[in-house]
Amino acid sequence: MARILDGKAIAAAVKQDLAMEIAQLRECGVQPKLVVVLVGDDAASASYVRSKERLARELGMEAEVIRLAADVSEVELLRQIELQNADDAVDALLVQLPLPDHIDTDRVLAAVDPNKDVDGFHPQNIGRYAMGSPLVWPCTTAGILEILVRSSVPLAGQTAVVVGRSRIVGWPTAQLLLAHNATVVQCHSRTKDLTEFTRQADILVVAAGQAGLIGVDDVREGAVVIDVGINRVDGRLVGDVDFDSVVAKAGAITPVPGGVGPLTVAMLMKNTVRLARLRRLTKGDER
Amino acid sequence: MARILDGKAIAAAVKQDLAMEIAQLRECGVQPKLVVVLVGDDAASASYVRSKERLARELGMEAEVIRLAADVSEVELLRQIELQNADDAVDALLVQLPLPDHIDTDRVLAAVDPNKDVDGFHPQNIGRYAMGSPLVWPCTTAGILEILVRSSVPLAGQTAVVVGRSRIVGWPTAQLLLAHNATVVQCHSRTKDLTEFTRQADILVVAAGQAGLIGVDDVREGAVVIDVGINRVDGRLVGDVDFDSVVAKAGAITPVPGGVGPLTVAMLMKNTVRLARLRRLTKGDER
Repeated sequence: MARILDGKAIAAAVKQDLAMEIAQLRECGVQPKLVVVLVGDDAASASYVRSKERLARELGMEAEVIRLAADVSEVELLRQIELQNADDAVDALLVQLPLPDHIDTDRVLAAVDPNKDVDGFHPQNIGRYAMGSPLVWPCTTAGILEILVRSSVPLAGQTAVVVGRSRIVGWPTAQLLLAHNATVVQCHSRTKDLTEFTRQADILVVAAGQAGLIGVDDVREGAVVIDVGINRVDGRLVGDVDFDSVVAKAGAITPVPGGVGPLTVAMLMKNTVRLARLRRLTKGDER
Repeated sequence: MARILDGKAIAAAVKQDLAMEIAQLRECGVQPKLVVVLVGDDAASASYVRSKERLARELGMEAEVIRLAADVSEVELLRQIELQNADDAVDALLVQLPLPDHIDTDRVLAAVDPNKDVDGFHPQNIGRYAMGSPLVWPCTTAGILEILVRSSVPLAGQTAVVVGRSRIVGWPTAQLLLAHNATVVQCHSRTKDLTEFTRQADILVVAAGQAGLIGVDDVREGAVVIDVGINRVDGRLVGDVDFDSVVAKAGAITPVPGGVGPLTVAMLMKNTVRLARLRRLTKGDER
């Protein structure tokens, strides 16, 4: 029976550490500030943004949400980003995705000051993945590392198989595991015999967005299985891994819900604090 | 017996195509220009730079070498780069590596205008690897693709194993193969059982810089083997692959010398022409 990697408990521990760190920073006169730009009135996006704002304040940080109409022009959106880039009180700037179709997402992400790029999506930050040293890793990827490290899972020399190569989760996670000296196998929708690879994994990260993609026969005995999928099936949230069968074979596994999910917002806070530290307390050389 | 992938012949074909393309560009009033910055008087670097200059001119391009003393200050080097960035006649700018120890290589590479970054080493260009769409791929990586494509080796869905994760060759090559929809295994010095992975490769790229690292037992029957290593053993140039034994088992193999090597300078020329086209003939959107 696999050890269940409890994302809620790990996220709670992260938040507790952060609250203490932020209190210390405030004593030094630094109050980290997160700004979220929300375009349009998508209900899911609005709810995510509210929970980010709430948690930031709960931990003692400043948080501000800039709400723009769904039909805002790209020029106006870029102007708002410029204002936040120029504002010395702002440490971290996040543009909530997805953006409306008339806006060029790549251009908007590239407009964020790389030193305030809390999501780790600026091309310059992505460029640093190659050296294993972005200012911050994207939040979900950072959350996966947090789970692995706090669960004492060794990475160096291990075989890590990542299923899915999205720019937001799969690909950066593969780069992070490589930076930690795992041998990394990057699988995706064009991979021919997926099982052949997943069965070799000491660490298996599944971020394909396909319920039931990974069953018990796809997993090696004792593997650490990180399930990033969130799919709604018959009104129930499930991951990409068939938890009920795989739990009997894996060495450790994250449940859905309650696995990677709770870490994502917590890591956004951790990234904000890191950017505040780097920008306010250290010299340019450490950036 | 493996098919020998003749890098010299492929490089000759690339150059022939380029000479024609450059002639056409000149008819449109565009003469591509490559500038190489050479710091110090390392004999090997000087010889590489001369061959780049010579080939550029041979193909009908402009080429200029800016020679700076070994003790040039970083500030002065950055000023020279700024001048080239600002010069509208310059399409491609290359800083010959390695640089002297007193100079911060990362800072220098990041100072090159990304639109003139012919080596593909600017962080912004590296960031585009993630999307599979850098303006140019680094020259050796681009040369490997040229060999594979001109030899009709399919990539999509194939298992590609890359040994070595240097920023200059191994890592970008893994990203390029991923962009072409191969399933990619990234191995490196911390990989535990290297043979276990290399034997799975449909396409095996070896860029470890270790003579004899890959023997006949490490290769799958019929695999395509690309040997990027250049090692001097008993006064003879050899690759990372034991050519004499592997040639009997592989489906195709590049020799050393005469494999990947000849492509590197040719691809520098191809990258120069591509940057000239992008900067002078297309709108910003295609960048």
